[in-house]
Amino acid sequence: MNYKKIDKNDIDFLISVCGEDRVFTGDEINEDFSHDELAGIKKYPDVLVEVKSTEEVSKIMKYAYENNIPVTPRGQGTGLVGGAVPLYGGIMINLSTMNRILELDEENLTLTVEPGVLLMEIAKYVEDHDLFYPPDPGEKSATIGGNINTNAGGMRAVKYGVTRDYIRGLEVVLPNGEVIEVGGKVVKNSSGYSLKDLFVGSEGTLGIVTKATLRLLPLPKKAISLLIPFPNLEMAIETVPKIIKSKAIPTAIEYMVRDVILASEEFLGKKFPDSSADAYLLLTFDGNSKEEIENTYEKVAHICLDSGAIDVLISNTQERQESIWSARGAFLEAIKASTSEMDECDVVVPRNRVAEFVKYTDDLQDKFDIRIRSFGHAGDGNLHIYVLRDDLPEDVWKKKLNDVFDEMYTKARELGGKVSGEHGIGYAKRPYLQESMGSKGMDLIKNIKLSFDPKNILNPGKVC
Amino acid sequence: MNYKKIDKNDIDFLISVCGEDRVFTGDEINEDFSHDELAGIKKYPDVLVEVKSTEEVSKIMKYAYENNIPVTPRGQGTGLVGGAVPLYGGIMINLSTMNRILELDEENLTLTVEPGVLLMEIAKYVEDHDLFYPPDPGEKSATIGGNINTNAGGMRAVKYGVTRDYIRGLEVVLPNGEVIEVGGKVVKNSSGYSLKDLFVGSEGTLGIVTKATLRLLPLPKKAISLLIPFPNLEMAIETVPKIIKSKAIPTAIEYMVRDVILASEEFLGKKFPDSSADAYLLLTFDGNSKEEIENTYEKVAHICLDSGAIDVLISNTQERQESIWSARGAFLEAIKASTSEMDECDVVVPRNRVAEFVKYTDDLQDKFDIRIRSFGHAGDGNLHIYVLRDDLPEDVWKKKLNDVFDEMYTKARELGGKVSGEHGIGYAKRPYLQESMGSKGMDLIKNIKLSFDPKNILNPGKVC
Repeated sequence: MNYKKIDKNDIDFLISVCGEDRVFTGDEINEDFSHDELAGIKKYPDVLVEVKSTEEVSKIMKYAYENNIPVTPRGQGTGLVGGAVPLYGGIMINLSTMNRILELDEENLTLTVEPGVLLMEIAKYVEDHDLFYPPDPGEKSATIGGNINTNAGGMRAVKYGVTRDYIRGLEVVLPNGEVIEVGGKVVKNSSGYSLKDLFVGSEGTLGIVTKATLRLLPLPKKAISLLIPFPNLEMAIETVPKIIKSKAIPTAIEYMVRDVILASEEFLGKKFPDSSADAYLLLTFDGNSKEEIENTYEKVAHICLDSGAIDVLISNTQERQESIWSARGAFLEAIKASTSEMDECDVVVPRNRVAEFVKYTDDLQDKFDIRIRSFGHAGDGNLHIYVLRDDLPEDVWKKKLNDVFDEMYTKARELGGKVSGEHGIGYAKRPYLQESMGSKGMDLIKNIKLSFDPKNILNPGKVC
Repeated sequence: MNYKKIDKNDIDFLISVCGEDRVFTGDEINEDFSHDELAGIKKYPDVLVEVKSTEEVSKIMKYAYENNIPVTPRGQGTGLVGGAVPLYGGIMINLSTMNRILELDEENLTLTVEPGVLLMEIAKYVEDHDLFYPPDPGEKSATIGGNINTNAGGMRAVKYGVTRDYIRGLEVVLPNGEVIEVGGKVVKNSSGYSLKDLFVGSEGTLGIVTKATLRLLPLPKKAISLLIPFPNLEMAIETVPKIIKSKAIPTAIEYMVRDVILASEEFLGKKFPDSSADAYLLLTFDGNSKEEIENTYEKVAHICLDSGAIDVLISNTQERQESIWSARGAFLEAIKASTSEMDECDVVVPRNRVAEFVKYTDDLQDKFDIRIRSFGHAGDGNLHIYVLRDDLPEDVWKKKLNDVFDEMYTKARELGGKVSGEHGIGYAKRPYLQESMGSKGMDLIKNIKLSFDPKNILNPGKVC
């Protein structure tokens, strides 16, 4: 790709739009902006711009489009697949400075926000109004813009679905700087192709989200968590399809193994309520009355015990629940801290194939003599599997990582799974997307990209 | 558009694929296939083919693509905007003969079906297994393929969302005959642009759905309906945002007026439980226990009474509920039977603007001296407003209809609404979509169409 190199005129233009204080070059650019949380790819933008309004984003895109300059949008950089890394340099637009909550509409149950608002800010704001934004990814300091762009899922997808299900409307700046609104405050919409659903999950390659109208639910009045120890992981995970089949609807079903729990205890310096068993299921149930929840969880507790669970530990106080879920939220960081480098596989498989897939990845540890750790959303089939470098030399690590990933993604495909459940494709998973979608699917995706961004200036090198 | 005219060779080819019994020309084509349920457009296909498999659809599309022949896919023809009318003749593919239920997967809570299965068949099949497919459009004899293509909504969207929310995966034949699968049995998916969500609601213009994997829920154990008479329509509808704001979640909130109820009594020859009041709200609540439902509906009943409701009539037997809801299901047919011809407006507006919009359309009756009837989904903002011809001469009718529609769609836009909540754009609503989306949005839609169907042979003249 033949992009224009950034020069002084370009910088002057950006300063004319945003002012000197919000345009950064060279050493002024913090190292954080050259990478994300995981993907082994690093590259600085030529210029970093903090934006404050849709109008600024629009002006910058129009200029970039006319001048053939690549642009990478960025939120908090908490991605794991290099989606926000400026592979071709150029302009990076930092949207985390567009971070205002614009409107809570209680009659339509919507919240309208700028893209830089953090998940944890949204959760707190709506809960203070007795409302609920259900998507709940582990990384609470991610921006809502990032969540929309990856169609993030999180823990509560079993009952509540994913980010896509909670996006009513978007304002988007197109690659040529034009601004469009898709969707709105409406509950139903069959008015032409769903551009909104095309932007959701497009990883900043089709347009830059500058405003989002989120769908809210009433806040469930009560929640209860069950921590259920099992003699081994297989028994734990094989219980999940039985729970689904029983027609109970837990809010979340997570699985975890002792090794990961111990790592998180060390990382947080805090004891987990129990670490005596090899494997655990962690379930949450929510609802509006104690009775309603109890009816459901008692049935599920019996299913677990009948399937070999050692015990059922009930957490019905806010404190106990928070201690368990904050440990769960720290698993990624804890595993990361336990090794020199790692990469992850975020596959999703049908829920009744999770046990088979996890067993398969476990066996790869022996086959390739490498450490593999996993945890994840057993209830929705979305697994986070980490391959750890430890003290392997660079070339051996790269080779083993490639081989292990090839095996995992091939297996996931065989089981009817997909490359990414919630982290996206970004830069790192492109070869696997290609294999998974085949040439017909990839052609459609490339053609869509081209019809939105004929000059390929917006977040180039990602997804396709 | 310069399409090839169908000749004997083409017919011979179709016979070679499907056999003589399933290929129809000339007088063999039933008049039903020349129109849908409402749109004032009529055109016969040159040839009608009943298909039985994906392979047949693929062969026909490949041939049509190579020979530049327009193809119109068709289900039960219950649409209201001309989406299934073969504007350019050519081949019509009747998919209602691909009507097998393929697999119920209770561990993943999915049902896989061919596109010609009827909504009422799906409802019965899953309920027999204590499961639930929530989308519930009034027209139960529509095919699931048609519902996917219009992203149909129905009564239960207030609590459960629309068809899009229940489509896990699709098999689609592309305009050039290639077959792709998008989505699957997975609960989360962030693997490239969501082609699945692009096909949903694309009205058969981007590909032909030949298989669908639907997401099911456990069947709620109990349901109760409240029929709530109000002194007038305004008071009824103005109560709805208060219900939403109260954080109760009804399954459905419909509104209806006495005139429409009387028309339905006459049409069905059956009395409605009450027709003494000018206007009604009809609400349903579902859940797993009587207590759970009672807690919610008591709160809502009080809100209604505080807002001027005359009474709250509780229907807690299956029979009573069915009598009310079957009357509700007959409203469209009843209004149709009360006049010589009619056309409808299927706008959706934010829920707190419904009262304003309905009042506005009511006032148009006097302004244009024409009969207008409406009913609809007050709880999700999707209104069905019918303009009736009665004994108006053709030219006066056309003129008035145009003027009334212009006013309605302009008003809907002002209120943040959209052209279609669930019936789609088809042929009839294209000018209004254009106005609503603006040239930027329409350009994106046209480019997407072109990238899927460069020869514009699949359902040409629809949506864009």
